Amino acid sequence: MAFPVRTCALVGRFSDPRIAESVGTLLPHLAGRGVTVLVSEDAALDSALAVRVPKEQFGARADLVIAVGGDGTLLYALSLVVRHGVPLLGVNRGRVGFLTDVMPQDMLGPVDAALAGELQADERPLLAAQLHCAGGEVAQAFALNDVVMQKHDTGRTLDFETRIDGQFVSAHGGDGIIVATGTGSTAYALSCGGPIVEPHLPALIIAPISPHTLSDRAIVVSSSSVIEVALIERPDTQAHVICDGAVLGQFTAADRLEVRTAKERATLLHPPGHDYYGLLRSKLHWGRGTFER
Amino acid sequence: MAFPVRTCALVGRFSDPRIAESVGTLLPHLAGRGVTVLVSEDAALDSALAVRVPKEQFGARADLVIAVGGDGTLLYALSLVVRHGVPLLGVNRGRVGFLTDVMPQDMLGPVDAALAGELQADERPLLAAQLHCAGGEVAQAFALNDVVMQKHDTGRTLDFETRIDGQFVSAHGGDGIIVATGTGSTAYALSCGGPIVEPHLPALIIAPISPHTLSDRAIVVSSSSVIEVALIERPDTQAHVICDGAVLGQFTAADRLEVRTAKERATLLHPPGHDYYGLLRSKLHWGRGTFER
Amino acid sequence: MAFPVRTCALVGRFSDPRIAESVGTLLPHLAGRGVTVLVSEDAALDSALAVRVPKEQFGARADLVIAVGGDGTLLYALSLVVRHGVPLLGVNRGRVGFLTDVMPQDMLGPVDAALAGELQADERPLLAAQLHCAGGEVAQAFALNDVVMQKHDTGRTLDFETRIDGQFVSAHGGDGIIVATGTGSTAYALSCGGPIVEPHLPALIIAPISPHTLSDRAIVVSSSSVIEVALIERPDTQAHVICDGAVLGQFTAADRLEVRTAKERATLLHPPGHDYYGLLRSKLHWGRGTFER
Amino acid sequence: MAFPVRTCALVGRFSDPRIAESVGTLLPHLAGRGVTVLVSEDAALDSALAVRVPKEQFGARADLVIAVGGDGTLLYALSLVVRHGVPLLGVNRGRVGFLTDVMPQDMLGPVDAALAGELQADERPLLAAQLHCAGGEVAQAFALNDVVMQKHDTGRTLDFETRIDGQFVSAHGGDGIIVATGTGSTAYALSCGGPIVEPHLPALIIAPISPHTLSDRAIVVSSSSVIEVALIERPDTQAHVICDGAVLGQFTAADRLEVRTAKERATLLHPPGHDYYGLLRSKLHWGRGTFER
Repeated sequence: MAFPVRTCALVGRFSDPRIAESVGTLLPHLAGRGVTVLVSEDAALDSALAVRVPKEQFGARADLVIAVGGDGTLLYALSLVVRHGVPLLGVNRGRVGFLTDVMPQDMLGPVDAALAGELQADERPLLAAQLHCAGGEVAQAFALNDVVMQKHDTGRTLDFETRIDGQFVSAHGGDGIIVATGTGSTAYALSCGGPIVEPHLPALIIAPISPHTLSDRAIVVSSSSVIEVALIERPDTQAHVICDGAVLGQFTAADRLEVRTAKERATLLHPPGHDYYGLLRSKLHWGRGTFER
Repeated sequence: MAFPVRTCALVGRFSDPRIAESVGTLLPHLAGRGVTVLVSEDAALDSALAVRVPKEQFGARADLVIAVGGDGTLLYALSLVVRHGVPLLGVNRGRVGFLTDVMPQDMLGPVDAALAGELQADERPLLAAQLHCAGGEVAQAFALNDVVMQKHDTGRTLDFETRIDGQFVSAHGGDGIIVATGTGSTAYALSCGGPIVEPHLPALIIAPISPHTLSDRAIVVSSSSVIEVALIERPDTQAHVICDGAVLGQFTAADRLEVRTAKERATLLHPPGHDYYGLLRSKLHWGRGTFER
Repeated sequence: MAFPVRTCALVGRFSDPRIAESVGTLLPHLAGRGVTVLVSEDAALDSALAVRVPKEQFGARADLVIAVGGDGTLLYALSLVVRHGVPLLGVNRGRVGFLTDVMPQDMLGPVDAALAGELQADERPLLAAQLHCAGGEVAQAFALNDVVMQKHDTGRTLDFETRIDGQFVSAHGGDGIIVATGTGSTAYALSCGGPIVEPHLPALIIAPISPHTLSDRAIVVSSSSVIEVALIERPDTQAHVICDGAVLGQFTAADRLEVRTAKERATLLHPPGHDYYGLLRSKLHWGRGTFER
Repeated sequence: MAFPVRTCALVGRFSDPRIAESVGTLLPHLAGRGVTVLVSEDAALDSALAVRVPKEQFGARADLVIAVGGDGTLLYALSLVVRHGVPLLGVNRGRVGFLTDVMPQDMLGPVDAALAGELQADERPLLAAQLHCAGGEVAQAFALNDVVMQKHDTGRTLDFETRIDGQFVSAHGGDGIIVATGTGSTAYALSCGGPIVEPHLPALIIAPISPHTLSDRAIVVSSSSVIEVALIERPDTQAHVICDGAVLGQFTAADRLEVRTAKERATLLHPPGHDYYGLLRSKLHWGRGTFER
């Protein structure tokens, strides 16, 4: 990470008025600091203060990525630079997110600190998903939150089996399965009954989605484990694999999904005073129950 | 562990006919191998083949403990020898247990292998619980499965707060809280909505019991963490702390509970072919759901 | 229901060898009783003992439907005759189902009893789903188990809101929502955290699917309630409505889904000795836990 | 219910300063309306405006009960007058409760409306619990929320079985079981995984507490059902039965608990604009999830 930051990529759904407003503040601020601002060549932005480049160049050229929007925007921004290890700062467009924890009204301080290299880098493990297709091709992607194998298109549930480090775990029936990092434990896996797992614990979470068998509970295993998922053939089965919300590909009974911890890591920048449990209390409305009954 | 085993302690509720039957087979078998068998001086056992000693001496004198009964019996046996690191073999009296995984009808082979030092030692982390009382005394105990702080006596729920490594986590309302090891993740914590955690993952599970706040979900943290629990004063509050099923003491708003990973470890002996996920499939009736709808 | 039965429709995936085997036993048995057997004109069946007719005629012509397969087959068979009130007998192809509770090896006794009108009729409430599209068209379907509004195609979760009898209930984020009968409470809704509801209780279950908000719990309301679901517009939203596993239609932010209890009912025939809680114990592996720890 | 109200009983933990403050406002207000105010003879209250009587007389003498505090206070107040059908108004001391839904700062309007008989009476079903002891005695109590059979004193879990209308349901292992009304579905049963059930649906909820068997899910049955619970003998079993938070008695393997819907009903008075789903949204932090990811 070359600090002080000279080049910064800006990612967001600029057509959203709330995001455009924050971007309208950020652009002159960054320009005033002498920072070159890159935006995607197809960005819905009309400003002479930004340089339009193919977004595939963000990784090689940017020293910092600022994602403006929700956690989904930060995940998308990460996917553009994941192989280059560029640090990311997330400005939330509304309520605080798990990943985008800078509030728009307070963003200029953290942005300046990020430019100066003064924010603490929070390195998070990433998942590497490999979708081994029957024909021999392998589709690959990274995920900061989760790799999801899930039914789609029809309402038909799936039969599939899982292995950990080559060892058979179980045959499952249900809507699919999630392999999540600790970072992703508070995203989709939480909605599917999984536990909260400290982001820095070297662990993976395997969480079934709407399982037929009610004892098919989330499992937490070592981050050095390799998780394999294979479909059991059934008529009308339709499934796909999704990495951090982006479809990696269709998944058939002839394919095999492998998920492991990647060598690469994501670098998140947090504003000073970042407090993981404080974030959980805020997002999950904790600590109020005791006054309610 | 000094093998070949010369002295073996036998633990169980010998007044139970099914257990007495297994013990009736074990005693002459062990004697025939030249092994001295220790039983507690108050054991409900009438046999010249066993030496009655105070059970506090098991730790110093036995090379092996055989627990006959359910998982609760093995936990009790462990509590007798925990500071001496004596390995334990569990013979289950009925259905297979998570900890007592030798079946009575197949026990002599594994017992002989244990005597010969041929069974693989499975070292499991232990919890150390410290109950710091207002007066300055500290009550201590180990736990292989879990340390539980729970309401008792009245139906009144508790208000309490938790800290991890000194950092405030949340104020909770409910029936109590469990700190469990991976080993204990398939015991009480599972009934309270916790995840399954690989026994060798360096992690602790913090699982609330019947929480008022529905988002008060189980948290998995590093095994190097120190977990603190303190009650918030309320009229009629009655709570106690339980380690592996044994009451450590009453818990009042003036007290503080600290749970951390102990330096000591438990050594479990498994029969050859022990398969953790196979055990889960059997105990949790997994892998059948797909054929059921 | 005109008994003794003269005409019986046979429904199943006849290409499945296990089902074909049961059908091979049923056909001569029914013919020997003088019963006319109807099968769909496109049935994968080569037998002179069955009359091939358009399956749309089953409702008007059959006195009884025998569904051979799983619960999904019985739901499909029901959809063919739902407006005519023809009773259904379910022969399960493997393990017992909630709806198909006659075992193949024991089927001839219950079949004869059904032909003679001697089986008790179990009348179950049905749901009527109306999908009001922006253009004014209304798509309609019945459901014995459930009406499901769910994301599809993309991994994007949905924002939607619910009303009961016109009263706003909540804004939800998640994968969708289920409206189920008591009969359907042990199907998909159970996998999504819903309760078991006695099939004859005049109640509907509203169960969110993988909700963002962890307190978004299943709600049980009167069967006289009208449940409304509407999507909140978001980019990339893709949803559809599924009745008993069959897609009713796409669902957009301009549409509105209404679910209520239908005037029509389903008539299920059970073998003598049918025991609802016995079925639950068997399917859910109940009553074993007490011997396991 | 004789309106306009001439005599009103006031119930609360008057030693709590926040409650004393509300009572200090209520007493002169009620006196100014010519209403006789009864308080318990042992009330921690020093006021010439209240008449001290044995609280057992509230039922016969009061036309209205005002409970100031949390839901627990209202449940206690109800237990004093349950056989007389006196209506109750609940003033909450802090955050809104499910049962005490008048806020202190807004209480005088609803109180006047209650005095004038202008508040709508919300009649809620009650449970009648009968604890049949081995010796032949029967202990009885009513419950608006729930009847709970639960372990106590030791950490040992219970083995017990349940019957509905004499029909065996299941053998359970765990911490106990709850029989709840729809009103009580948002109290303890909700913390134990039960569904939300509309208070006026003629239904009972049977919810196991921390069950060993993970498929031991809450069951919703007709309010005309009789629920029976019996312990299976095990050493060290310690259990008791609790009705709306008050201990009814010890429960041993020789005893039998019967719970049914009572003939009596509770009459709750709500302020105008009472909205059940609005209350749920507020208490359960609903409808925010969609803006959080």
